[in-house]
Amino acid sequence: MAARWTTTSARLAPLAVAFVVPWLCYVLEAAEGAPWFWPPIGGGGDDPYCLTWRVMVEANNAKGWRTVPAQCVGYVRGYMAWGQYHRDVAAVAEQAAAYATQVAPPAGGDGLDAWVLDVDDTCLSNQPYYQVKQFGAYDPVAFRAWASRAICPGIPAMQWLLQTLRSRGFRVFVVTGRDEETLGSCTAANLAAAGFSGYDRLIMRGALHRGQSSVAFKSAVRRQLVEEEGYRIRGNVGDQWSDLQGDYAGDRVFKVPNPMYFVP
Amino acid sequence: MAARWTTTSARLAPLAVAFVVPWLCYVLEAAEGAPWFWPPIGGGGDDPYCLTWRVMVEANNAKGWRTVPAQCVGYVRGYMAWGQYHRDVAAVAEQAAAYATQVAPPAGGDGLDAWVLDVDDTCLSNQPYYQVKQFGAYDPVAFRAWASRAICPGIPAMQWLLQTLRSRGFRVFVVTGRDEETLGSCTAANLAAAGFSGYDRLIMRGALHRGQSSVAFKSAVRRQLVEEEGYRIRGNVGDQWSDLQGDYAGDRVFKVPNPMYFVP
Repeated sequence: MAARWTTTSARLAPLAVAFVVPWLCYVLEAAEGAPWFWPPIGGGGDDPYCLTWRVMVEANNAKGWRTVPAQCVGYVRGYMAWGQYHRDVAAVAEQAAAYATQVAPPAGGDGLDAWVLDVDDTCLSNQPYYQVKQFGAYDPVAFRAWASRAICPGIPAMQWLLQTLRSRGFRVFVVTGRDEETLGSCTAANLAAAGFSGYDRLIMRGALHRGQSSVAFKSAVRRQLVEEEGYRIRGNVGDQWSDLQGDYAGDRVFKVPNPMYFVP
Repeated sequence: MAARWTTTSARLAPLAVAFVVPWLCYVLEAAEGAPWFWPPIGGGGDDPYCLTWRVMVEANNAKGWRTVPAQCVGYVRGYMAWGQYHRDVAAVAEQAAAYATQVAPPAGGDGLDAWVLDVDDTCLSNQPYYQVKQFGAYDPVAFRAWASRAICPGIPAMQWLLQTLRSRGFRVFVVTGRDEETLGSCTAANLAAAGFSGYDRLIMRGALHRGQSSVAFKSAVRRQLVEEEGYRIRGNVGDQWSDLQGDYAGDRVFKVPNPMYFVP
Protein backbone atom coordinates (compact mmCIF):
# COMPACT_ATOMS: atom_id res chain seq x y z
CA MET A 1 0.00 0.00 0.00
CA ALA A 2 2.81 2.36 0.97
CA ALA A 3 4.67 1.46 -2.23
CA ARG A 4 1.54 1.98 -4.29
CA TRP A 5 1.01 5.40 -2.67
CA THR A 6 4.59 6.38 -3.40
CA THR A 7 4.26 5.30 -7.02
CA THR A 8 1.01 7.18 -7.39
CA SER A 9 2.44 10.30 -5.79
CA ALA A 10 5.49 10.09 -8.07
CA ARG A 11 3.11 9.88 -11.02
CA LEU A 12 1.11 12.80 -9.71
CA ALA A 13 4.10 15.05 -9.09
CA PRO A 14 4.27 16.45 -12.64
CA LEU A 15 0.53 16.98 -12.55
CA ALA A 16 0.94 18.91 -9.31
CA VAL A 17 3.57 21.11 -10.87
CA ALA A 18 1.49 21.59 -14.01
CA PHE A 19 -1.85 22.33 -12.39
CA VAL A 20 -1.69 22.75 -8.64
CA VAL A 21 1.06 25.36 -8.51
CA PRO A 22 -0.62 27.73 -10.98
CA TRP A 23 -3.94 27.18 -9.20
CA LEU A 24 -2.31 27.92 -5.83
CA CYS A 25 -0.83 31.08 -7.28
CA TYR A 26 -4.24 32.07 -8.61
CA VAL A 27 -5.84 31.54 -5.21
CA LEU A 28 -3.11 33.46 -3.42
CA GLU A 29 -3.29 36.17 -6.04
CA ALA A 30 -7.01 36.51 -5.43
CA ALA A 31 -6.31 36.99 -1.72
CA GLU A 32 -6.18 40.72 -1.09
CA GLY A 33 -2.78 42.18 -1.67
CA ALA A 34 -0.95 38.88 -2.03
CA PRO A 35 1.79 39.07 -4.66
CA TRP A 36 2.78 36.36 -7.07
CA PHE A 37 5.71 34.27 -6.01
CA TRP A 38 8.30 34.98 -8.64
CA PRO A 39 9.46 38.08 -10.43
CA PRO A 40 9.33 38.33 -14.21
CA ILE A 41 12.42 38.80 -16.31
CA GLY A 42 12.85 42.49 -16.86
CA GLY A 43 11.35 43.81 -13.65
CA GLY A 44 7.96 44.58 -15.13
CA GLY A 45 9.36 46.23 -18.24
CA ASP A 46 9.16 43.32 -20.62
CA ASP A 47 5.93 43.87 -22.55
CA PRO A 48 6.64 46.35 -25.36
CA TYR A 49 3.03 47.47 -25.89
CA CYS A 50 2.25 47.90 -22.21
CA LEU A 51 5.58 49.61 -21.55
CA THR A 52 4.71 52.11 -24.29
CA TRP A 53 1.30 52.66 -22.68
CA ARG A 54 2.74 53.08 -19.18
CA VAL A 55 5.30 55.65 -20.32
CA MET A 56 2.52 57.54 -22.15
CA VAL A 57 0.60 57.68 -18.87
CA GLU A 58 3.62 58.96 -16.93
CA ALA A 59 4.44 61.61 -19.56
CA ASN A 60 0.80 62.81 -19.54
CA ASN A 61 0.30 61.84 -23.17
CA ALA A 62 -2.44 59.29 -22.38
CA LYS A 63 -5.34 61.05 -20.67
CA GLY A 64 -8.90 60.25 -19.69
CA TRP A 65 -8.50 56.46 -19.68
CA ARG A 66 -11.04 54.62 -17.51
CA THR A 67 -9.37 51.25 -17.11
CA VAL A 68 -6.01 49.67 -17.72
CA PRO A 69 -6.05 48.23 -21.29
CA ALA A 70 -7.22 44.61 -21.09
CA GLN A 71 -3.95 43.22 -22.44
CA CYS A 72 -1.98 45.16 -19.82
CA VAL A 73 -3.74 43.97 -16.65
CA GLY A 74 -1.12 41.30 -16.02
CA TYR A 75 1.67 43.70 -16.92
CA VAL A 76 0.44 46.35 -14.47
CA ARG A 77 0.07 43.72 -11.74
CA GLY A 78 3.64 42.63 -12.35
CA TYR A 79 4.91 46.19 -12.52
CA MET A 80 3.27 47.07 -9.20
CA ALA A 81 4.13 43.91 -7.31
CA TRP A 82 7.51 42.80 -8.59
CA GLY A 83 9.83 45.65 -7.78
CA GLN A 84 9.91 48.07 -10.70
CA TYR A 85 7.18 50.27 -9.22
CA HIS A 86 8.99 50.53 -5.89
CA ARG A 87 12.25 51.28 -7.69
CA ASP A 88 10.49 54.02 -9.64
CA VAL A 89 8.84 55.57 -6.57
CA ALA A 90 12.12 55.50 -4.66
CA ALA A 91 13.89 57.28 -7.54
CA VAL A 92 11.24 60.03 -7.59
CA ALA A 93 11.54 60.44 -3.80
CA GLU A 94 15.32 60.74 -4.16
CA GLN A 95 14.97 63.37 -6.90
CA ALA A 96 12.53 65.33 -4.73
CA ALA A 97 14.81 65.07 -1.69
CA ALA A 98 17.84 66.23 -3.70
CA TYR A 99 15.90 69.25 -4.95
CA ALA A 100 14.59 69.95 -1.43
CA THR A 101 18.16 70.01 -0.14
CA GLN A 102 19.04 72.60 -2.80
CA VAL A 103 16.14 74.90 -1.91
CA ALA A 104 16.00 74.26 1.83
CA PRO A 105 15.21 77.39 3.85
CA PRO A 106 17.95 78.75 6.12
CA ALA A 107 17.77 77.85 9.81
CA GLY A 108 15.64 80.42 11.65
CA GLY A 109 13.74 81.38 8.48
CA ASP A 110 10.12 82.47 8.45
CA GLY A 111 8.72 78.92 8.39
CA LEU A 112 6.70 79.54 5.23
CA ASP A 113 8.52 77.21 2.81
CA ALA A 114 6.13 74.36 2.15
CA TRP A 115 5.59 71.15 0.24
CA VAL A 116 2.33 69.53 -0.76
CA LEU A 117 1.93 65.75 -0.78
CA ASP A 118 -1.06 63.85 -2.13
CA VAL A 119 -2.50 60.85 -0.23
CA ASP A 120 -3.80 58.05 -2.46
CA ASP A 121 -0.94 56.22 -4.16
CA THR A 122 1.47 58.92 -3.11
CA CYS A 123 1.61 58.38 0.69
CA LEU A 124 -0.80 55.44 0.98
CA SER A 125 -0.98 52.57 -1.48
CA ASN A 126 -4.25 51.28 -2.93
CA GLN A 127 -2.43 48.53 -4.78
CA PRO A 128 -4.13 45.73 -2.75
CA TYR A 129 -7.55 47.12 -3.60
CA TYR A 130 -6.90 47.66 -7.31
CA GLN A 131 -5.18 44.32 -7.68
CA VAL A 132 -8.30 42.53 -6.46
CA LYS A 133 -10.42 44.70 -8.76
CA GLN A 134 -8.12 43.73 -11.65
CA PHE A 135 -7.42 47.44 -12.20
CA GLY A 136 -10.99 47.97 -13.35
CA ALA A 137 -13.06 51.16 -13.58
CA TYR A 138 -13.46 53.49 -10.60
CA ASP A 139 -16.17 52.22 -8.21
CA PRO A 140 -16.88 54.92 -5.60
CA VAL A 141 -18.83 52.65 -3.21
CA ALA A 142 -16.25 49.87 -3.17
CA PHE A 143 -13.39 52.36 -2.91
CA ARG A 144 -15.02 54.10 0.05
CA ALA A 145 -15.47 50.73 1.78
CA TRP A 146 -11.78 49.94 1.18
CA ALA A 147 -10.57 53.37 2.35
CA SER A 148 -12.76 53.15 5.47
CA ARG A 149 -10.85 50.12 6.63
CA ALA A 150 -7.75 52.32 7.00
CA ILE A 151 -5.41 49.49 6.06
CA CYS A 152 -3.69 51.04 3.03
CA PRO A 153 0.01 50.25 3.29
CA GLY A 154 2.29 53.27 3.53
CA ILE A 155 4.66 53.81 0.61
CA PRO A 156 8.08 53.64 2.29
CA ALA A 157 9.91 56.04 -0.06
CA MET A 158 7.29 58.71 0.57
CA GLN A 159 7.43 58.26 4.33
CA TRP A 160 11.19 58.78 4.01
CA LEU A 161 10.59 61.87 1.85
CA LEU A 162 8.21 63.37 4.42
CA GLN A 163 10.79 62.94 7.18
CA THR A 164 13.50 64.37 4.91
CA LEU A 165 11.39 67.43 4.10
CA ARG A 166 10.70 67.98 7.80
CA SER A 167 14.36 67.67 8.66
CA ARG A 168 15.20 70.26 5.96
CA GLY A 169 12.88 72.77 7.62
CA PHE A 170 9.83 72.60 5.33
CA ARG A 171 6.18 72.64 6.35
CA VAL A 172 4.34 69.72 4.76
CA PHE A 173 0.67 69.79 3.79
CA VAL A 174 -1.01 66.52 2.93
CA VAL A 175 -3.82 67.29 0.49
CA THR A 176 -6.41 64.78 -0.74
CA GLY A 177 -9.63 64.78 -2.72
CA ARG A 178 -11.04 62.20 -0.28
CA ASP A 179 -14.27 63.39 1.34
CA GLU A 180 -13.61 64.86 4.78
CA GLU A 181 -16.96 63.99 6.33
CA THR A 182 -17.00 60.28 5.48
CA LEU A 183 -13.26 59.50 5.33
CA GLY A 184 -11.66 62.12 7.57
CA SER A 185 -10.94 60.12 10.69
CA CYS A 186 -10.01 56.88 8.92
CA THR A 187 -7.59 58.69 6.60
CA ALA A 188 -5.82 60.37 9.50
CA ALA A 189 -5.72 57.03 11.34
CA ASN A 190 -4.39 55.23 8.25
CA LEU A 191 -1.64 57.81 7.77
CA ALA A 192 -0.62 57.49 11.40
CA ALA A 193 -0.70 53.68 11.32
CA ALA A 194 1.39 53.71 8.14
CA GLY A 195 4.06 55.83 9.81
CA PHE A 196 3.26 59.25 8.36
CA SER A 197 3.72 61.74 11.14
CA GLY A 198 5.10 65.24 11.46
CA TYR A 199 3.11 66.79 8.64
CA ASP A 200 1.50 70.12 9.39
CA ARG A 201 -2.05 69.60 8.25
CA LEU A 202 -4.21 67.05 6.46
CA ILE A 203 -6.46 68.98 4.07
CA MET A 204 -9.43 67.06 2.69
CA ARG A 205 -12.34 67.85 0.39
CA GLY A 206 -15.11 69.54 2.36
CA ALA A 207 -18.69 70.39 1.43
CA LEU A 208 -17.53 73.55 -0.36
CA HIS A 209 -15.55 71.60 -2.95
CA ARG A 210 -17.72 68.50 -3.35
CA GLY A 211 -18.26 67.66 -7.00
CA GLN A 212 -15.38 69.84 -8.18
CA SER A 213 -12.67 68.44 -10.41
CA SER A 214 -9.44 67.45 -8.74
CA VAL A 215 -7.55 70.29 -10.46
CA ALA A 216 -10.13 72.87 -9.28
CA PHE A 217 -10.21 71.55 -5.69
CA LYS A 218 -6.45 71.26 -5.33
CA SER A 219 -5.85 74.65 -6.96
CA ALA A 220 -8.27 76.20 -4.44
CA VAL A 221 -6.43 74.56 -1.53
CA ARG A 222 -3.06 75.78 -2.80
CA ARG A 223 -4.42 79.27 -3.45
CA GLN A 224 -5.56 79.40 0.21
CA LEU A 225 -2.12 78.27 1.41
CA VAL A 226 -0.28 80.81 -0.76
CA GLU A 227 -2.57 83.82 -0.94
CA GLU A 228 -4.17 83.73 2.48
CA GLU A 229 -1.59 81.99 4.63
CA GLY A 230 1.55 83.22 2.92
CA TYR A 231 3.25 79.88 2.23
CA ARG A 232 5.64 79.40 -0.68
CA ILE A 233 4.98 76.01 -2.26
CA ARG A 234 8.48 74.82 -3.17
CA GLY A 235 7.51 71.29 -4.16
CA ASN A 236 4.38 69.32 -4.99
CA VAL A 237 4.28 65.52 -5.14
CA GLY A 238 1.42 63.46 -6.55
CA ASP A 239 0.63 60.36 -8.57
CA GLN A 240 -1.82 62.15 -10.89
CA TRP A 241 -1.07 65.00 -13.26
CA SER A 242 -4.26 66.61 -11.91
CA ASP A 243 -2.42 66.96 -8.56
CA LEU A 244 0.37 68.85 -10.30
CA GLN A 245 -1.42 71.18 -12.72
CA GLY A 246 -3.64 74.21 -12.21
CA ASP A 247 -2.92 77.31 -10.12
CA TYR A 248 -0.11 77.63 -7.57
CA ALA A 249 1.19 74.20 -8.60
CA GLY A 250 4.50 74.80 -6.85
CA ASP A 251 8.02 75.73 -7.95
CA ARG A 252 8.65 72.14 -8.99
CA VAL A 253 6.37 69.14 -9.30
CA PHE A 254 7.16 65.44 -8.97
CA LYS A 255 5.06 62.78 -10.68
CA VAL A 256 4.85 59.54 -8.71
CA PRO A 257 4.14 56.62 -11.07
CA ASN A 258 0.63 55.23 -11.20
CA PRO A 259 -0.52 53.00 -14.05
CA MET A 260 -3.56 51.74 -12.07
CA TYR A 261 -6.08 54.52 -12.61
CA PHE A 262 -6.51 58.04 -13.99
CA VAL A 263 -8.08 60.98 -12.13
CA PRO A 264 -9.09 63.78 -14.52
CA MET B 1 44.51 20.04 -49.55
CA ALA B 2 40.81 20.61 -50.04
CA ALA B 3 40.04 18.13 -47.25
CA ARG B 4 42.49 19.82 -44.97
CA TRP B 5 40.93 23.21 -45.67
CA THR B 6 37.47 21.83 -44.93
CA THR B 7 38.65 20.34 -41.65
CA THR B 8 40.34 23.56 -40.65
CA SER B 9 37.32 25.64 -41.53
CA ALA B 10 35.08 23.28 -39.57
CA ARG B 11 37.40 23.73 -36.60
CA LEU B 12 37.39 27.49 -37.05
CA ALA B 13 33.62 27.82 -37.33
CA PRO B 14 32.98 28.01 -33.57
CA LEU B 15 35.81 30.51 -33.25
CA ALA B 16 34.19 32.61 -35.97
CA VAL B 17 30.90 32.56 -34.12
CA ALA B 18 32.59 33.37 -30.83
CA PHE B 19 34.86 36.17 -31.98
CA VAL B 20 34.25 37.31 -35.53
CA VAL B 21 30.51 37.93 -35.24
CA PRO B 22 30.80 40.16 -32.16
CA TRP B 23 33.72 41.96 -33.77
CA LEU B 24 31.71 42.47 -36.97
CA CYS B 25 28.86 43.85 -34.90
CA TYR B 26 31.25 46.20 -33.15
CA VAL B 27 32.60 47.48 -36.46
CA LEU B 28 29.13 47.95 -37.90
CA GLU B 29 28.00 49.62 -34.70
CA ALA B 30 30.86 52.09 -34.97
CA ALA B 31 29.69 52.97 -38.49
CA GLU B 32 27.46 56.01 -38.28
CA GLY B 33 23.89 55.12 -37.51
CA ALA B 34 24.26 51.38 -38.06
CA PRO B 35 22.09 49.38 -35.70
CA TRP B 36 23.02 46.16 -33.97
CA PHE B 37 21.76 43.02 -35.62
CA TRP B 38 19.49 41.53 -33.02
CA PRO B 39 16.93 42.93 -30.67
CA PRO B 40 17.25 42.42 -26.92
CA ILE B 41 14.64 40.57 -24.94
CA GLY B 42 12.21 43.14 -23.67
CA GLY B 43 12.43 45.68 -26.46
CA GLY B 44 14.86 47.95 -24.63
CA GLY B 45 12.95 47.80 -21.36
CA ASP B 46 14.98 45.17 -19.61
CA ASP B 47 17.34 47.13 -17.38
CA PRO B 48 15.46 48.08 -14.21
CA TYR B 49 17.70 51.00 -13.23
CA CYS B 50 17.82 52.53 -16.69
CA LEU B 51 14.09 51.99 -17.21
CA THR B 52 13.46 53.92 -13.98
CA TRP B 53 15.73 56.70 -15.21
CA ARG B 54 14.11 56.85 -18.65
CA VAL B 55 10.60 57.10 -17.18
CA MET B 56 11.81 59.87 -14.83
CA VAL B 57 13.04 61.76 -17.89
CA GLU B 58 9.73 61.35 -19.73
CA ALA B 59 7.67 62.38 -16.67
CA ASN B 60 9.85 65.49 -16.23
CA ASN B 61 11.08 64.32 -12.83
CA ALA B 62 14.73 64.14 -13.93
CA LYS B 63 15.89 67.57 -15.06
CA GLY B 64 19.12 69.28 -15.95
CA TRP B 65 21.08 66.12 -16.73
CA ARG B 66 24.06 66.65 -19.04
CA THR B 67 24.73 63.13 -20.23
CA VAL B 68 23.03 59.75 -20.18
CA PRO B 69 24.17 57.96 -16.98
CA ALA B 70 27.26 55.88 -17.81
CA GLN B 71 25.58 52.59 -16.99
CA CYS B 72 22.66 53.43 -19.30
CA VAL B 73 24.57 54.19 -22.51
CA GLY B 74 24.04 50.65 -23.83
CA TYR B 75 20.44 50.68 -22.67
CA VAL B 76 19.66 53.95 -24.46
CA ARG B 77 21.35 52.68 -27.63
CA GLY B 78 19.18 49.55 -27.48
CA TYR B 79 16.06 51.53 -26.68
CA MET B 80 16.61 53.87 -29.64
CA ALA B 81 17.69 51.27 -32.18
CA TRP B 82 15.74 48.13 -31.39
CA GLY B 83 12.12 49.11 -31.75
CA GLN B 84 10.82 50.36 -28.42
CA TYR B 85 11.58 53.99 -29.25
CA HIS B 86 9.73 53.77 -32.56
CA ARG B 87 6.80 52.05 -30.86
CA ASP B 88 6.71 54.85 -28.29
CA VAL B 89 6.89 57.64 -30.88
CA ALA B 90 4.18 55.98 -32.99
CA ALA B 91 1.91 55.74 -29.93
CA VAL B 92 2.38 59.45 -29.16
CA ALA B 93 1.63 60.34 -32.79
CA GLU B 94 -1.54 58.23 -32.64
CA GLN B 95 -2.66 59.95 -29.41
CA ALA B 96 -2.03 63.34 -30.98
CA ALA B 97 -3.91 62.39 -34.16
CA ALA B 98 -6.88 61.07 -32.16
CA TYR B 99 -7.05 64.31 -30.20
CA ALA B 100 -6.67 66.34 -33.42
CA THR B 101 -9.64 64.51 -34.90
CA GLN B 102 -11.72 65.46 -31.85
CA VAL B 103 -10.83 69.16 -32.05
CA ALA B 104 -10.60 69.48 -35.84
CA PRO B 105 -11.99 72.78 -37.14
CA PRO B 106 -15.14 72.63 -39.26
CA ALA B 107 -14.71 72.78 -43.04
CA GLY B 108 -14.66 76.40 -44.18
CA GLY B 109 -13.50 77.65 -40.78
CA ASP B 110 -11.29 80.67 -40.29
CA GLY B 111 -8.05 78.76 -40.84
CA LEU B 112 -6.59 79.83 -37.50
CA ASP B 113 -6.46 76.45 -35.71
CA ALA B 114 -2.81 75.55 -35.49
CA TRP B 115 -0.33 73.01 -34.21
CA VAL B 116 3.31 73.50 -33.33
CA LEU B 117 5.90 70.82 -34.05
CA ASP B 118 9.52 70.88 -32.92
CA VAL B 119 12.34 69.79 -35.29
CA ASP B 120 15.22 67.96 -33.57
CA ASP B 121 14.15 64.49 -32.47
CA THR B 122 10.54 65.35 -33.12
CA CYS B 123 10.48 65.59 -36.94
CA LEU B 124 14.14 64.82 -37.66
CA SER B 125 16.18 62.21 -35.81
CA ASN B 126 19.65 62.88 -34.44
CA GLN B 127 19.98 59.30 -33.30
CA PRO B 128 22.88 58.53 -35.72
CA TYR B 129 24.83 61.51 -34.38
CA TYR B 130 24.24 60.80 -30.70
CA GLN B 131 24.89 57.10 -31.13
CA VAL B 132 28.37 57.82 -32.48
CA LYS B 133 28.92 60.34 -29.66
CA GLN B 134 27.87 57.62 -27.17
CA PHE B 135 25.12 59.98 -25.93
CA GLY B 136 27.72 62.30 -24.46
CA ALA B 137 27.48 65.96 -23.48
CA TYR B 138 26.21 68.62 -25.91
CA ASP B 139 28.94 69.73 -28.30
CA PRO B 140 27.73 72.77 -30.28
CA VAL B 141 30.48 72.65 -32.92
CA ALA B 142 30.08 68.95 -33.68
CA PHE B 143 26.30 69.22 -33.64
CA ARG B 144 26.35 72.13 -36.09
CA ALA B 145 28.60 70.12 -38.40
CA TRP B 146 26.18 67.18 -38.22
CA ALA B 147 23.08 69.34 -38.76
CA SER B 148 24.74 71.12 -41.72
CA ARG B 149 24.96 67.84 -43.57
CA ALA B 150 21.13 67.78 -43.72
CA ILE B 151 21.04 63.99 -43.51
CA CYS B 152 18.93 63.55 -40.35
CA PRO B 153 16.45 60.75 -41.01
CA GLY B 154 12.81 61.78 -40.78
CA ILE B 155 10.78 60.20 -37.98
CA PRO B 156 8.04 58.36 -39.89
CA ALA B 157 5.32 58.65 -37.22
CA MET B 158 5.75 62.42 -37.13
CA GLN B 159 5.65 62.72 -40.90
CA TRP B 160 2.36 60.81 -40.74
CA LEU B 161 1.14 63.13 -37.96
CA LEU B 162 1.97 66.23 -40.03
CA GLN B 163 -0.03 64.89 -42.98
CA THR B 164 -2.89 63.93 -40.66
CA LEU B 165 -2.98 67.41 -39.12
CA ARG B 166 -3.02 68.99 -42.58
CA SER B 167 -5.81 66.72 -43.72
CA ARG B 168 -7.85 67.69 -40.62
CA GLY B 169 -7.61 71.35 -41.58
CA PHE B 170 -4.92 72.59 -39.19
CA ARG B 171 -2.11 75.01 -39.94
CA VAL B 172 1.23 73.55 -38.84
CA PHE B 173 4.18 75.61 -37.63
CA VAL B 174 7.53 73.93 -37.34
CA VAL B 175 9.49 75.72 -34.61
CA THR B 176 13.12 75.09 -33.74
CA GLY B 177 15.83 76.63 -31.61
CA ARG B 178 18.35 75.96 -34.41
CA ASP B 179 20.09 79.13 -35.53
CA GLU B 180 18.46 80.56 -38.64
CA GLU B 181 21.53 82.21 -40.11
CA THR B 182 23.85 79.20 -40.03
CA LEU B 183 21.35 76.32 -40.28
CA GLY B 184 18.34 77.82 -42.04
CA SER B 185 18.76 76.45 -45.54
CA CYS B 186 20.09 73.02 -44.52
CA THR B 187 17.21 72.53 -42.03
CA ALA B 188 14.61 73.35 -44.68
CA ALA B 189 16.40 71.05 -47.13
CA ASN B 190 16.63 68.26 -44.57
CA LEU B 191 12.92 68.50 -43.75
CA ALA B 192 12.06 68.36 -47.45
CA ALA B 193 14.40 65.45 -48.12
CA ALA B 194 12.93 63.57 -45.16
CA GLY B 195 9.42 63.95 -46.54
CA PHE B 196 8.12 66.79 -44.37
CA SER B 197 6.06 69.01 -46.62
CA GLY B 198 2.84 70.95 -46.34
CA TYR B 199 3.68 72.79 -43.13
CA ASP B 200 2.92 76.49 -43.10
CA ARG B 201 6.14 77.98 -41.85
CA LEU B 202 9.53 76.95 -40.48
CA ILE B 203 10.32 79.33 -37.61
CA MET B 204 13.94 79.35 -36.45
CA ARG B 205 15.95 81.26 -33.86
CA GLY B 206 17.02 84.63 -35.26
CA ALA B 207 19.42 87.24 -33.95
CA LEU B 208 16.72 88.64 -31.63
CA HIS B 209 16.51 85.43 -29.62
CA ARG B 210 20.11 84.26 -29.72
CA GLY B 211 21.28 83.20 -26.27
CA GLN B 212 17.75 82.92 -24.86
CA SER B 213 16.58 79.75 -23.15
CA SER B 214 14.49 77.39 -25.20
CA VAL B 215 11.39 78.12 -23.06
CA ALA B 216 11.82 81.90 -23.54
CA PHE B 217 12.42 81.65 -27.30
CA LYS B 218 9.58 79.22 -27.96
CA SER B 219 7.18 81.18 -25.74
CA ALA B 220 8.02 84.31 -27.72
CA VAL B 221 7.33 82.53 -31.02
CA ARG B 222 3.99 81.20 -29.75
CA ARG B 223 3.02 84.60 -28.35
CA GLN B 224 3.61 86.08 -31.80
CA LEU B 225 1.47 83.38 -33.43
CA VAL B 226 -1.37 83.82 -30.93
CA GLU B 227 -1.35 87.51 -29.99
CA GLU B 228 -0.26 89.06 -33.26
CA GLU B 229 -1.41 86.59 -35.88
CA GLY B 230 -4.55 85.31 -34.17
CA TYR B 231 -3.83 81.59 -34.27
CA ARG B 232 -5.25 79.19 -31.69
CA ILE B 233 -2.58 76.64 -30.76
CA ARG B 234 -4.58 73.45 -30.34
CA GLY B 235 -1.64 71.09 -29.99
CA ASN B 236 2.10 71.28 -29.39
CA VAL B 237 4.47 68.37 -29.98
CA GLY B 238 8.07 68.22 -28.82
CA ASP B 239 10.70 65.88 -27.43
CA GLN B 240 11.75 68.28 -24.64
CA TRP B 241 9.59 69.57 -21.80
CA SER B 242 11.08 72.99 -22.59
CA ASP B 243 9.18 72.84 -25.91
CA LEU B 244 5.94 72.27 -24.03
CA GLN B 245 6.13 74.67 -21.08
CA GLY B 246 6.03 78.45 -20.83
CA ASP B 247 3.46 80.84 -22.31
CA TYR B 248 0.85 79.90 -24.91
CA ALA B 249 1.97 76.27 -24.69
CA GLY B 250 -1.17 75.09 -26.48
CA ASP B 251 -4.44 73.46 -25.45
CA ARG B 252 -2.72 70.11 -25.19
CA VAL B 253 0.92 69.10 -25.34
CA PHE B 254 2.48 65.82 -26.45
CA LYS B 255 5.87 64.68 -25.18
CA VAL B 256 7.84 62.68 -27.73
CA PRO B 257 10.30 60.38 -25.97
CA ASN B 258 13.97 61.38 -25.89
CA PRO B 259 16.42 59.78 -23.47
CA MET B 260 19.45 61.00 -25.46
CA TYR B 261 19.84 64.58 -24.20
CA PHE B 262 18.16 67.28 -22.12
CA VAL B 263 17.52 70.87 -23.23
CA PRO B 264 16.81 73.18 -20.28
